[in-house]
Amino acid sequence: MQLAVDIGNTYSKAGLYQDGVLMNTVRFAGDDPAALIAFISENGTPAATMLSAVRPVSNEFVSALQQICPVHFLSHETPLPFTITYASPESLGRDRIAGVAAAYGRFPGQNVLVVDMGTCITYDILKADGSWPGGIISPGIRMRLQAMHHFTGQLPLIELPDETPLTGTTTAQALASGALCGARAEMNGIIEAYKAIYEDLTVLIGGGDNNYFDKKLRISIFAAPNLVIDGLKTIMDFNNLR
Amino acid sequence: MQLAVDIGNTYSKAGLYQDGVLMNTVRFAGDDPAALIAFISENGTPAATMLSAVRPVSNEFVSALQQICPVHFLSHETPLPFTITYASPESLGRDRIAGVAAAYGRFPGQNVLVVDMGTCITYDILKADGSWPGGIISPGIRMRLQAMHHFTGQLPLIELPDETPLTGTTTAQALASGALCGARAEMNGIIEAYKAIYEDLTVLIGGGDNNYFDKKLRISIFAAPNLVIDGLKTIMDFNNLR
Repeated sequence: MQLAVDIGNTYSKAGLYQDGVLMNTVRFAGDDPAALIAFISENGTPAATMLSAVRPVSNEFVSALQQICPVHFLSHETPLPFTITYASPESLGRDRIAGVAAAYGRFPGQNVLVVDMGTCITYDILKADGSWPGGIISPGIRMRLQAMHHFTGQLPLIELPDETPLTGTTTAQALASGALCGARAEMNGIIEAYKAIYEDLTVLIGGGDNNYFDKKLRISIFAAPNLVIDGLKTIMDFNNLR
Repeated sequence: MQLAVDIGNTYSKAGLYQDGVLMNTVRFAGDDPAALIAFISENGTPAATMLSAVRPVSNEFVSALQQICPVHFLSHETPLPFTITYASPESLGRDRIAGVAAAYGRFPGQNVLVVDMGTCITYDILKADGSWPGGIISPGIRMRLQAMHHFTGQLPLIELPDETPLTGTTTAQALASGALCGARAEMNGIIEAYKAIYEDLTVLIGGGDNNYFDKKLRISIFAAPNLVIDGLKTIMDFNNLR
């Protein structure tokens, strides 16, 4: 068994793979080891773990995992099946590296745009020749709402609704439309911009929330509800960690 | 002469109009009266002032102005040449009211989308029948950069460059692209969404920065470098304040 652990800004996620197949996942807050240890107890003991973290992880968390199996930390120096041509690879978010690995594992030899909607929305382009030059980082949908409240004197902090009309007829609706319809328009426009460069573009969307994408785009859009942990699994396979 | 004063979140702007023509403008920080009083001394004394403020204005500022001429505060209760059908008009930003007034003054009887790029980007739709149902509020370009730094553990605060490639090959470029290319894609997409509703749409852009808008949109785009103060002037005329 292989364990993939994704420590994010807001929440964390882990998945256990057996013979290449994802058996189960767990989502937990921060880097509290209790939830992960309980998950392992219930689902089976991994032979190796790969961990992606976009922020410092507590010693307690790492020690608890190391008592179970070897723990490998993903970095830009980890051997990868594709080539990073980013000018400052040391500054790349580990989750972005893993997302591109997931794209490589699923669509090798294709031009793939990886879109991951989290605290930030990241767009990364993996080229058919196996090189990854970089991408785009823009604010996540909830961050947009938080920012408009935090950085102005008068706008309220609203809850994100499931849907909103284009034209807000209240301030709460206008803010919701700015976050939801705004991010949707942005994502469609960025995809179109990449489609103009790569005619045969495939789009892989982390989180699986492809409601945001225009049905008229005429581009192949695939959902990857387990984008980062799938990418960690691809990297473990490449490094014979199993 | 008429004086229009726009107190914004980040900076303020005032303009003096003589016989309907904008004679001169001044930009100043916050609500310090010194710069505005100096501007009036140099350019002529107004018969009336209309003031739009998106945040509280100091008594000192208001008193200094009132010693020169009557000061009228724009609100949702000010008589307007168009109809606000917003569900919560009391919560409307005064700058948005003034922006829609500018659209009405310049393109009466047309469907106009007013886009104002400031601390936030606001989109407001003035319908050909003279009603204004509301619009959209989304984060401004600099706010996007500030938010990604403020609300994450690891992303730096970068200066906004004039231009950036679509694909960032450094983290600073990736953030710049997220803010600039992201907002540009958003604005083009929102305009397209309104164009799908109003075929004969006219777009009026505050700040005059229409570099952001796609030349392929086939929509009439007009720049209004003095959007808010022009709108205040339109409202003063409607109320015979001159």
